[in-house]
Amino acid sequence: MPSYTPPTKDLSFVLHDVLKVDQSDVPGYDELDRDFTSAILEEAGKISRDVLAPLNVVGDTEGCKLENGVVRTPTGFKEAIDTLREGGWTGLDCDPEYGGQGMPYVMATAVGEMMSAANMAMMMYPGLTHGAYSAIHAHGTVQQKATYLPKMVNFEWGGTMNLTEPHCGTDLGLMRTKAEPQEDGTYKITGQKIFISAGEHDMTDNIIHLVLAKIPGGPEGVKGISLFIVPKFLVNEDGSLGARNSLACGKIEEKMGIHGNSTCVMNYDGATGYLLGQENKGMRAMFTMMNEARLGVGLQGLTQAVVSYQNAVEYAKDRIQGRAVTGAEAPDQAADPLIVHPDIRRTLMDQKAFIEGARAFALWGASLIDQEHRKGDKDAAGLIALMIPVIKGFLTDKGFDYCVSAQQVYGGHGYIEEWGMSQFARDARIAMIYEGANGVQALDLVGRKLATDGGKHVMGFFEMIKTFIKENEGNEALKADFLDPLKAASKDLQESSMFFMQAGMKNPNAALAGSTDFLHLFGHVCLGFMWARMGKVALEALDGNADDKAFYETKLHTGKYYMQRLLPETGLRLARIKTGADPVMGLPAEAF
Amino acid sequence: MPSYTPPTKDLSFVLHDVLKVDQSDVPGYDELDRDFTSAILEEAGKISRDVLAPLNVVGDTEGCKLENGVVRTPTGFKEAIDTLREGGWTGLDCDPEYGGQGMPYVMATAVGEMMSAANMAMMMYPGLTHGAYSAIHAHGTVQQKATYLPKMVNFEWGGTMNLTEPHCGTDLGLMRTKAEPQEDGTYKITGQKIFISAGEHDMTDNIIHLVLAKIPGGPEGVKGISLFIVPKFLVNEDGSLGARNSLACGKIEEKMGIHGNSTCVMNYDGATGYLLGQENKGMRAMFTMMNEARLGVGLQGLTQAVVSYQNAVEYAKDRIQGRAVTGAEAPDQAADPLIVHPDIRRTLMDQKAFIEGARAFALWGASLIDQEHRKGDKDAAGLIALMIPVIKGFLTDKGFDYCVSAQQVYGGHGYIEEWGMSQFARDARIAMIYEGANGVQALDLVGRKLATDGGKHVMGFFEMIKTFIKENEGNEALKADFLDPLKAASKDLQESSMFFMQAGMKNPNAALAGSTDFLHLFGHVCLGFMWARMGKVALEALDGNADDKAFYETKLHTGKYYMQRLLPETGLRLARIKTGADPVMGLPAEAF
Repeated sequence: MPSYTPPTKDLSFVLHDVLKVDQSDVPGYDELDRDFTSAILEEAGKISRDVLAPLNVVGDTEGCKLENGVVRTPTGFKEAIDTLREGGWTGLDCDPEYGGQGMPYVMATAVGEMMSAANMAMMMYPGLTHGAYSAIHAHGTVQQKATYLPKMVNFEWGGTMNLTEPHCGTDLGLMRTKAEPQEDGTYKITGQKIFISAGEHDMTDNIIHLVLAKIPGGPEGVKGISLFIVPKFLVNEDGSLGARNSLACGKIEEKMGIHGNSTCVMNYDGATGYLLGQENKGMRAMFTMMNEARLGVGLQGLTQAVVSYQNAVEYAKDRIQGRAVTGAEAPDQAADPLIVHPDIRRTLMDQKAFIEGARAFALWGASLIDQEHRKGDKDAAGLIALMIPVIKGFLTDKGFDYCVSAQQVYGGHGYIEEWGMSQFARDARIAMIYEGANGVQALDLVGRKLATDGGKHVMGFFEMIKTFIKENEGNEALKADFLDPLKAASKDLQESSMFFMQAGMKNPNAALAGSTDFLHLFGHVCLGFMWARMGKVALEALDGNADDKAFYETKLHTGKYYMQRLLPETGLRLARIKTGADPVMGLPAEAF
Repeated sequence: MPSYTPPTKDLSFVLHDVLKVDQSDVPGYDELDRDFTSAILEEAGKISRDVLAPLNVVGDTEGCKLENGVVRTPTGFKEAIDTLREGGWTGLDCDPEYGGQGMPYVMATAVGEMMSAANMAMMMYPGLTHGAYSAIHAHGTVQQKATYLPKMVNFEWGGTMNLTEPHCGTDLGLMRTKAEPQEDGTYKITGQKIFISAGEHDMTDNIIHLVLAKIPGGPEGVKGISLFIVPKFLVNEDGSLGARNSLACGKIEEKMGIHGNSTCVMNYDGATGYLLGQENKGMRAMFTMMNEARLGVGLQGLTQAVVSYQNAVEYAKDRIQGRAVTGAEAPDQAADPLIVHPDIRRTLMDQKAFIEGARAFALWGASLIDQEHRKGDKDAAGLIALMIPVIKGFLTDKGFDYCVSAQQVYGGHGYIEEWGMSQFARDARIAMIYEGANGVQALDLVGRKLATDGGKHVMGFFEMIKTFIKENEGNEALKADFLDPLKAASKDLQESSMFFMQAGMKNPNAALAGSTDFLHLFGHVCLGFMWARMGKVALEALDGNADDKAFYETKLHTGKYYMQRLLPETGLRLARIKTGADPVMGLPAEAF
């Protein structure tokens, strides 16, 4: 069975040495000194390793069962979640007014990385609840907040997000679920929602569904969508549970992975709903927490790569097979461990260089969200809006690829379910799809975010890289190994942005045909930038005779690997982008 | 449920217009005129579409069940295989002396593409039998051939290949299964073999296991391995079935995919075995049919991409979601079909350009095997030995990737098992692993095949491309769109080969660190070469006012897409290769 080792040292390195959270002026960051964050990371790591990870395979094997309208979650899930609740982990970054710990989002992200790596399917139950919490927190009335939030913060009540219908996913304008206003100010919700993660389960006393629906007679398309609170059990004025609402889980989907999470078809049959926010402004309300939701999904791509990598390393050190081409390295054994073989090394280095770069990228993104929310920093807000599709798309595409690579290290055993490597790949696969499929992320990036505020934010990002290079180019080792490759990659990104502006002006398809290439090009530049920043820290630490030389030398080597072997993909992506619309759009539909 | 459309026109295009099989002097090719091959392809296509494909999901859902030592295959599998047997399909390219149809391997490959696309897991039963047939045909005594081959040709008896043991896969030198010589000339086989595809099932009256084992006292390592025929039921002199042999399926593995095929743990407990070929020459005997086995697995990667692509196209045309950015294309509907969106087009074009290039590559490879076996062509033999790791590794890596891309077109539905797209990806995944994991293919390519006969065969391949370019560079359209990109890619391949020879001489790790990059670089050059050949044919057909202009125009556009957007990956691969050993090998094992 696979295991999980919490990467607390690496998380601490990014938080303190790279992002320097304890020197930040973001409100709330002042308490993030090393001792404090270490204590949190250690404890969260321990729970992840000892409580959550052992249940990952259980969740995959048992799955969820729907019986008489009730969903039974896998053995041990409820008890594990109780442990999280009791430790206050479900409300780590929630508002203290409602019982939360009030910690910055960057800490919730660091903790979230470990818990999701340990058990992605399980962590989706409190994860979805957190999303619903955020929506109610941002748009609810005083009464609604008081009614729902305290119970959701500690996961006494669960929460869900109901968007998709059988005939509409990305294009929510086609939505059919309707909300009929009642005389008492409530609405009767009727319709079918699909792919509702954690839509029904046995972990909480109540489930607070947030449902998008149309009020009859309202505007066409997405402008006529409103958001509703639709609790499984209605809540009495004193906070106690009242009548069962007219809604039910009709079916659990059989999926490729995340079997431990119940993906439900939800049927609303005149269920009582309460308007959340304003009428016809449902999309806006739902998108309030989109940045965090998408960053969370990007993180899932990363986390499955992390745990896959860890196990592949163990296997590669343990399994003996063949001899090193340069001579036996374990002459006392019948064969050498797999890790002596260059192609095994190559794949492990790919994974390692991605993972550590992506971790820094995700935490940097989380710190931008803190800057936006806690400081009202508009530049940070613009920058993270630009970055979100990159974090979501790049980290999940690559995360899945590297789960597959790690599985490959196991040879035939990687294909056998009992070894656990298949599950990581199957679970990671969904992250490329939900919260907006990665093609939609690329469209969002190229079609919307790039041009937001006249391109100000992408320009700001280029400027940020330029400044970093300029400030550090006196450092010769950094320049040759990190800054020069970063400069070249950044130039590719600028050139492709320029191409989009020019060619896309004449024909939007010329830009959109290259959107996925652009997202990946952008992702590489971001990870290259993160590695340049980490490389700088490592060089400084080694210059300063750091205690743990091996740690920083490994960082340096891994970073150089990224810059030399992975970052040059930007050139290929640029070349593809510049072929424009015709190769992609030239064939008539019937020629496929 | 997904469907399958036999690509008979495309297969015929490659066989006749590109490879010109009917003009070849390879013995047996003279009968391959268009009418004859069309009849075969149409009939095989019909069976694939109507009989095999509908059972693909059944195989995945039901899987195989082991009860009291007997494996029950999925509903309908046995009857479908009866249809194949009755039509003579199981022995299509087998020796007529033993009841086979005696057709060239290139035809078996064309037919095999369709049947494997329709139901990969099912086709493994006769597929493995064919491998065992080939080994007995090449190395068996007259008596052995007479006893086993007629029954195996028509799949009255199945066959298997037993190599892997729990502690050894790639490194067969570690093998423990022993074969003790008996006074009557037989051997007692004792040991455990794992990952035995079709190791036990209810489709045939007998199963002929080919088992690698060590005769005690023989040479160490792979030089002491012999190959044995170990039938499930011993065969009496009159050909009737005798006593049950001392062997049994101990367990069926739970796998990520190919659930319709039984992957068995086989326990041999003093089972009676008959030496096949010479003592201690088992590896050589086993590797006789390695080229065909590996080409067959490469084909599986392709076939799952083909059927995935076909279904993704249907979904993209059918599912309406959003509007084309250039204006509504289906204004009478609530939204446009997915296929209007550039990123959907991009992914379908990627798949299409790969599939059609890979199909030509696989059939070209099969024709080289025919040239080797039917004409004794030594150059063809050398060339196909070089190409085999590329066909196996590149087609399965890319085939899987494109199954994942096709699944992505379905959005959330791609993740739900009932839509069938997950199965294609899960089934395709194994092809990257078995018959030598792709890293081992890369090692075989760079560590052995490249230098075989002083590098003669890779030089021959370069020469072949050079000649093709030279002979056709007067054709301006071909030159600009196909020959120039091919020349550039081929130059990247030559430069990396040169780098390996120079750097690898000093440090073999400098070559092996780039082995997977080299395999992919090589694969792209091969597909680029195939597309250049297909582009030439298409241009000539269009010049000659072909009946079906649209077909050739589509070919031309798709080929140009490959040359413009996919082939340039060679530059990135070369850049990685030239970074040499240090980035990959520089970290100590404990730093991972």
